[in-house]
Amino acid sequence: MPPTIPDIVIGRLPLYLRALTRLAQEGQQVTSSHELGQRLGISSAQIRKDLSHFGGFGKQGTGYQIPYLVEQLKQVLKVNREWEVALVGAGDLGSALAHYRGFVNRGFRIACVFDNSPDKIGKTIGEFVVQPTEKLAEVIREHNIKIAMLAVPAEHAQDVTDELVAAGIQGILNYAPININVPENVRVQYIDPVVQLQRMTYYIP
Amino acid sequence: MPPTIPDIVIGRLPLYLRALTRLAQEGQQVTSSHELGQRLGISSAQIRKDLSHFGGFGKQGTGYQIPYLVEQLKQVLKVNREWEVALVGAGDLGSALAHYRGFVNRGFRIACVFDNSPDKIGKTIGEFVVQPTEKLAEVIREHNIKIAMLAVPAEHAQDVTDELVAAGIQGILNYAPININVPENVRVQYIDPVVQLQRMTYYIP
Repeated sequence: MPPTIPDIVIGRLPLYLRALTRLAQEGQQVTSSHELGQRLGISSAQIRKDLSHFGGFGKQGTGYQIPYLVEQLKQVLKVNREWEVALVGAGDLGSALAHYRGFVNRGFRIACVFDNSPDKIGKTIGEFVVQPTEKLAEVIREHNIKIAMLAVPAEHAQDVTDELVAAGIQGILNYAPININVPENVRVQYIDPVVQLQRMTYYIP
Repeated sequence: MPPTIPDIVIGRLPLYLRALTRLAQEGQQVTSSHELGQRLGISSAQIRKDLSHFGGFGKQGTGYQIPYLVEQLKQVLKVNREWEVALVGAGDLGSALAHYRGFVNRGFRIACVFDNSPDKIGKTIGEFVVQPTEKLAEVIREHNIKIAMLAVPAEHAQDVTDELVAAGIQGILNYAPININVPENVRVQYIDPVVQLQRMTYYIP
């Protein structure tokens, strides 16, 4: 695989994967860049160009075989396996994430939950016993966990991030409404409901 | 404003707005499409092209005045005002959203919270008294609310969506891990942590 895929292309692949998975659930076997583009608000030319980075996955005029394209995208994104995820923060949001049913079959599984509050440590949320933040580094190293979800208050986000990075975490999904600083080899994604809300208001008269 | 801005361009503007707001908070007054692109993983050519849809906001070679560009983007996205938002679902996730501090100064304010559970109705979360879902249509119409956040279990998401749409909601931020169907004039955005997680795994060896 060429090493120079632009980040913006990689960023679109999960959207393609989600749309294709939905088409498959609806019973469809074949799709086109045109149909995918209509579903996603992305031009069909852009979709063909994005997929061409990886060999194209389809032949001109015959469309894309959905099950094949799904498998190929999963392989490119490395989600044809299951990544263990550490969840930090067992408040309302952490609890919601621990119960979230959307991870199944999409490459991820919460493996452990941490909090620093004596009220929460030792309690069970979903299928997890909340562990003290002091054990974070040890557990992450022991399980060789590379990905964490950060659901702590904004004022603790950077401190926890530093601990996660020191423990070997290489990808952080940050729910706190604050920018976190990480070394260059660590990826961060933000869950920001306001960005999504701002994507709708333009269209509301 | 021309009526034919592609959805994908509108979708990037909130990212520009967030990056520019951060630069401003860091004390910067001027930026370039190159700097913005580096922060966002988007090519500078793409950024210049996107902004050119709205007149460009900057002169060749002198960079963008950040406060001016921020105001212009807020105007285009219609977030130079405050939209009232209805929150449906007062479980863990709804409760986390009711306490979320990331809405401030970004165009949105939760105005009311609904749930159908007798355990939750009448209770206070954050500054809100949870109201019964039966009052949803009445309150939404009375306050002329156009935007809702959906934080209900997946099995109720479509029913609640139908009620919201009937009450006049035109934008729905859906947290449930399920596709919802709406009429053409209603926008839906999804909060999908898995898409964000899948954007990181490609980079993790």
